[in-house]
Amino acid sequence: MPFYLRAKKIDYTAGKESIIALNQKEAWHYGLRPGDKIALETNGNHFIAIINTTKTRINAGDVGIYSDLWDRYGLREGEIIEMHFLKRAESIEAIKKKLLGESLTEKDFNAVVNDIVTERIGPTEIAYFVASSFPYPYTDRELYYLTKAVASHGEQLHLRGTVVDKHSVGGVAGNRTTMIVVPIIACTGLIIPKTSSRAITSPAGTADTMEVLAPVSFTAEKIKKIVQKHKGCLVWGGGVNLAPADDKIIKVSYPLSFEPYEKMMVSIMAKKVASDVKYLVIDMPIGEFVKIPDMRTARMLAQRFVRLGKKFGIKVRVLITRAKEPVGRGVGPALEARDVLRVLQQTEHLPTDLEKKSLMLAGMLLELAGKAKKGKGVNMARTILTSGTAWRKMAAFIRAQGGNPKITPDDVILGPVKHYLEAQQTGKIVEVNNRTINDICRALGAPEEKLAGMYLNKRLGQRVQKGARLCTLYAATDTRMKLAVKTLEKQAVFTIARAPYIKKR
Amino acid sequence: MPFYLRAKKIDYTAGKESIIALNQKEAWHYGLRPGDKIALETNGNHFIAIINTTKTRINAGDVGIYSDLWDRYGLREGEIIEMHFLKRAESIEAIKKKLLGESLTEKDFNAVVNDIVTERIGPTEIAYFVASSFPYPYTDRELYYLTKAVASHGEQLHLRGTVVDKHSVGGVAGNRTTMIVVPIIACTGLIIPKTSSRAITSPAGTADTMEVLAPVSFTAEKIKKIVQKHKGCLVWGGGVNLAPADDKIIKVSYPLSFEPYEKMMVSIMAKKVASDVKYLVIDMPIGEFVKIPDMRTARMLAQRFVRLGKKFGIKVRVLITRAKEPVGRGVGPALEARDVLRVLQQTEHLPTDLEKKSLMLAGMLLELAGKAKKGKGVNMARTILTSGTAWRKMAAFIRAQGGNPKITPDDVILGPVKHYLEAQQTGKIVEVNNRTINDICRALGAPEEKLAGMYLNKRLGQRVQKGARLCTLYAATDTRMKLAVKTLEKQAVFTIARAPYIKKR
Repeated sequence: MPFYLRAKKIDYTAGKESIIALNQKEAWHYGLRPGDKIALETNGNHFIAIINTTKTRINAGDVGIYSDLWDRYGLREGEIIEMHFLKRAESIEAIKKKLLGESLTEKDFNAVVNDIVTERIGPTEIAYFVASSFPYPYTDRELYYLTKAVASHGEQLHLRGTVVDKHSVGGVAGNRTTMIVVPIIACTGLIIPKTSSRAITSPAGTADTMEVLAPVSFTAEKIKKIVQKHKGCLVWGGGVNLAPADDKIIKVSYPLSFEPYEKMMVSIMAKKVASDVKYLVIDMPIGEFVKIPDMRTARMLAQRFVRLGKKFGIKVRVLITRAKEPVGRGVGPALEARDVLRVLQQTEHLPTDLEKKSLMLAGMLLELAGKAKKGKGVNMARTILTSGTAWRKMAAFIRAQGGNPKITPDDVILGPVKHYLEAQQTGKIVEVNNRTINDICRALGAPEEKLAGMYLNKRLGQRVQKGARLCTLYAATDTRMKLAVKTLEKQAVFTIARAPYIKKR
Repeated sequence: MPFYLRAKKIDYTAGKESIIALNQKEAWHYGLRPGDKIALETNGNHFIAIINTTKTRINAGDVGIYSDLWDRYGLREGEIIEMHFLKRAESIEAIKKKLLGESLTEKDFNAVVNDIVTERIGPTEIAYFVASSFPYPYTDRELYYLTKAVASHGEQLHLRGTVVDKHSVGGVAGNRTTMIVVPIIACTGLIIPKTSSRAITSPAGTADTMEVLAPVSFTAEKIKKIVQKHKGCLVWGGGVNLAPADDKIIKVSYPLSFEPYEKMMVSIMAKKVASDVKYLVIDMPIGEFVKIPDMRTARMLAQRFVRLGKKFGIKVRVLITRAKEPVGRGVGPALEARDVLRVLQQTEHLPTDLEKKSLMLAGMLLELAGKAKKGKGVNMARTILTSGTAWRKMAAFIRAQGGNPKITPDDVILGPVKHYLEAQQTGKIVEVNNRTINDICRALGAPEEKLAGMYLNKRLGQRVQKGARLCTLYAATDTRMKLAVKTLEKQAVFTIARAPYIKKR
C-alpha cells in the first residue's frame, strides 16, 4: 500500500547515493527507519532512495529530496510523490528467526553480512545477531554459511600458486613463530601472504614486531606484487579489506568481553577463505592465561576447525601446546624482533624454545602441503633454517618492504633506561605470570614504544641464587620505567620456591 | 592487581560526577570501557571515578583528571596514581547469565535496570538484554523481579486513598473510553490519576485528544494537586518520570519491530506499581490489525497479567473484545473529543458503541474495587453517566487543567477542508480497515493537526445505497487533503458486498 508526500527540495548532494529525508515521527508511523530504502514514483519516474530522518527540517506530509535527485527527475516543489514500501530488510527477519530458535540458511547469513557491511543495520541489530548465537550455537552448516558470507563480502586475494598459512589463536607473550615460519615456507615455493594484526591486549603483535625491521603497511596491490616475487610477505592486515564484517561484529561483541568460540572460528577462517588458502596450520596454546583453557576444549575446537576447513577445500591441522610462560626470551617489539633475528641468523643467545616451536609449525605445514613426507617436515624446516636459506628469504622480505636487509640482532635498538629484577631468595622458578608480563610491558610503553619491553634472563624451571638477575626491563624514559617498577612491586612475574619446589597458591 | 599512570590535569569540570580520561588503547588493554568506574589512590587519598576514553588527548601512560577532582585531592602534574579495578558491572554478568540460559535473580534485574537508568550500559548492552528474553522467556518470578526493578527505578506517585486505573493495550482507532471511564470512576471516590501517552502509530492518543479540551502537560507535583482535589485527572504521562528504564528498553526493541508480550506486560505494570494502583482493568482488543491476534493468546496474557498483579497486591481484570472497526465514529483528536463530549453530555449523534464499551470497563472496575456488587457495576456506571455527574466531574478536570469547562460537542473545531467518500455500489459493509483509516488520518495531519481526521458516517454491517456518504475527511489545508485522497484511491476503508454479503478476499 503506497502513501503520498509533497516534494520539497533540500540543498544537499550525496554523490553516489540517492537520499531522501522524512519527518522522524512520520517515518516512525510507517515503520521506516534511517537507512531503510523506499521506492518513489512521480510523473512516470520510479526510483529507490535511502531514508534519512529529521525532527525539525522536514514537516510531516513532506518528503525532502536531495538536490541531485531533484534535478535528475525534474521535480517541482510541492508535487505529490507516491511512496512504496520495499520489503523489510531480510537481515532483520533472519535475526528474528535465529532469536526464536530456528536455523539460518545461506541466504539468511548473506543478508545479515551484506547489511552489516553496507551499514544497513547498525550496532543494535548486530548485537541481536551476536546474542542469537549464545542460546542456539551454530551447527557446522551454519558456521560454514556464515564464514562463507563474511569471506565473500570484502576484498579477495587471488594469488597464483598453492597458498598456505599459519595462524596463532593468540594470547601468549613473545610467541613470534610467524616471522620464522613464513620465510621457511616461502623458501619451498609455497605461497604464504602473511597479513598480521597489531597488538590489542598484548605487548606486541607480529605486525608491531615486523615493523622494527621494515614498514608493514601496504595496499592490497603492493602486497600482491611482493608476494608474487618473493612467495611471501609479513605485513599488517589492516591495509587489506579482507572480511570487513568481522571487524564490526568484534566491536559489538566487546562490551560483553565474551566471544563465543564460533565467532573466533569465523573470524579466522573467513580471512583464509578470502585469501584462497589451501593448507593451514593453527597454533593453539592452552593454559590459565590464554583464550583456550583446557585440552578438551582445544580438541573440540580443533575438530571443528578441520571440518569447517574441509568445506572450503582447506586442509587444517592444529598444534595444541601448553602455554606456561612466554615463547622466546624477549617481550616487546624490539626484543621480540631480536629473538627472531637470532633464530634466523643462528647467532648466540638463540632462544631454543622459539626455534623449536617454529620448526614444529613449519614442519607440520610442509607435511600438510605435501612438500615433506610424513615425519620429515621438521627436519626439512631445520635444514632450511640452519643453512641460512630462511634468513636470506627474510632479508628479501625486509628489502621488498623497505627495511635494512643487513640488520643483525645487535643492531636492534633497545630502550636506554634499564632496570633489573633480582631474585629475593634462592630456589626454583615454578611459575612465570604471563599476564603480569603483559601489564609490565604495557606500562613500559610497548607496543607503541617499540624499544620498550622485558628480557627474561631466567626461565621456568631454572634454579636461581638469591640476587640473580631474573629479567631486564627496557624503557625509553625514566617516567615509563617508574610506572613499570611500581607495577612490579605489587605483582610477581616469577614465583620462586625453595626445595621441594612446590608452588604455593 | 593495580596499575600505575601519571597524573595529567585536564581543563574540564563535570559537576557532580568524578571523571578521568584514559587513552583508548590503554583502556582497551585493561578491559576498561567508557563509563566503567575505577578506583584511584594517591597520597593516602582514595576515590572512585568514571572513565572517559580518548584516542588523541591523553597519551598511554597518563591519566587525565578533571580539574575539580584535581583540586579536591591536591594533585601534582606527573605524580604517579595507583589505579585499582572495581568489580565488573554486575549487569553485564547478569545479561551473560541470561544469554547462556540461566534464570535471573532479583539482584540481577536490579543491577540491569539500575545500569540502564544511570546509563552505565548503553543500547548495545540493552539489546543483548532484550535478546536474552526471546530464547528464554521470563518465568512469572522473573517477570515479577523485572517489573519491580523497573517500577522502583524512577519517580513514585504516592497518593492518599484507593488508587485504581484502566489501561488499553492499544491499537484500535477512536478507542477513547478512558476519557469517559475516568470521570465516572472519580465520581465514586476512587482515585484515578490517569497519565496517558501521545499517539505513536495511531492518529490520536488519549493525551492528544484530551489536549483538544485542556492542557495536559504538568509536573508530577501539579498532577498530585489536581488528583488530591478532584480524585482524578487526564494528563500526559511524559511529565512524570515513572519507570524511565522502560523508555530505553522500548527504544532498543524498535529496530526489530517485535516486542515480546512480556516486555509489554512489564511496561504496563511497572507504571501501575509506581503509582500504587490497587485495582486495574485492562482493555485488550484482539483482531487482525491490533497487537493481540487471537483469543488463545489473549486469555494466556490475561492470566499472566492477573498473576503478576497479585504479586504486587494489584487486582487485575481483563476485558477481551474483538476489534473489527474503530470505536466511536470520529478518528483524530478533535473528532474523538467530540465523540467523548457527546457521550458525557448525552447529546444527539451519541456513538453508542463507545458509550457501551466505556460503561463495561467502568462497571468492571467498580465491581473489582468493591464499589458495586457483582453484576451491578455497569448499571452504577450508567447512572453516574446519564445523571450528568460524570460530565460535571470531567468539567472539573477541564477547569483544573486550564481548559474551558463549558465546551459542547458543537464547539469543537474541525478542519475546514472536507471531502466525502461515497459508496461505489449498493450493498452491505462487510469490512472496515483500521490500518487504512490510520494511514489516511496520518496523511490528513493527525495527531499534530488536531482538527484533522475522519468521521465514519456508516459503520460495519450497515446496508448502503450507491452514492451514500460513507465517511467524511477533515483537513486544515488543501494539500493535506490531496495527500489523503491520493491514499484513498489506492486503499479501501470500506469493503461493500452485494447480497449474499460474502466478503471477497
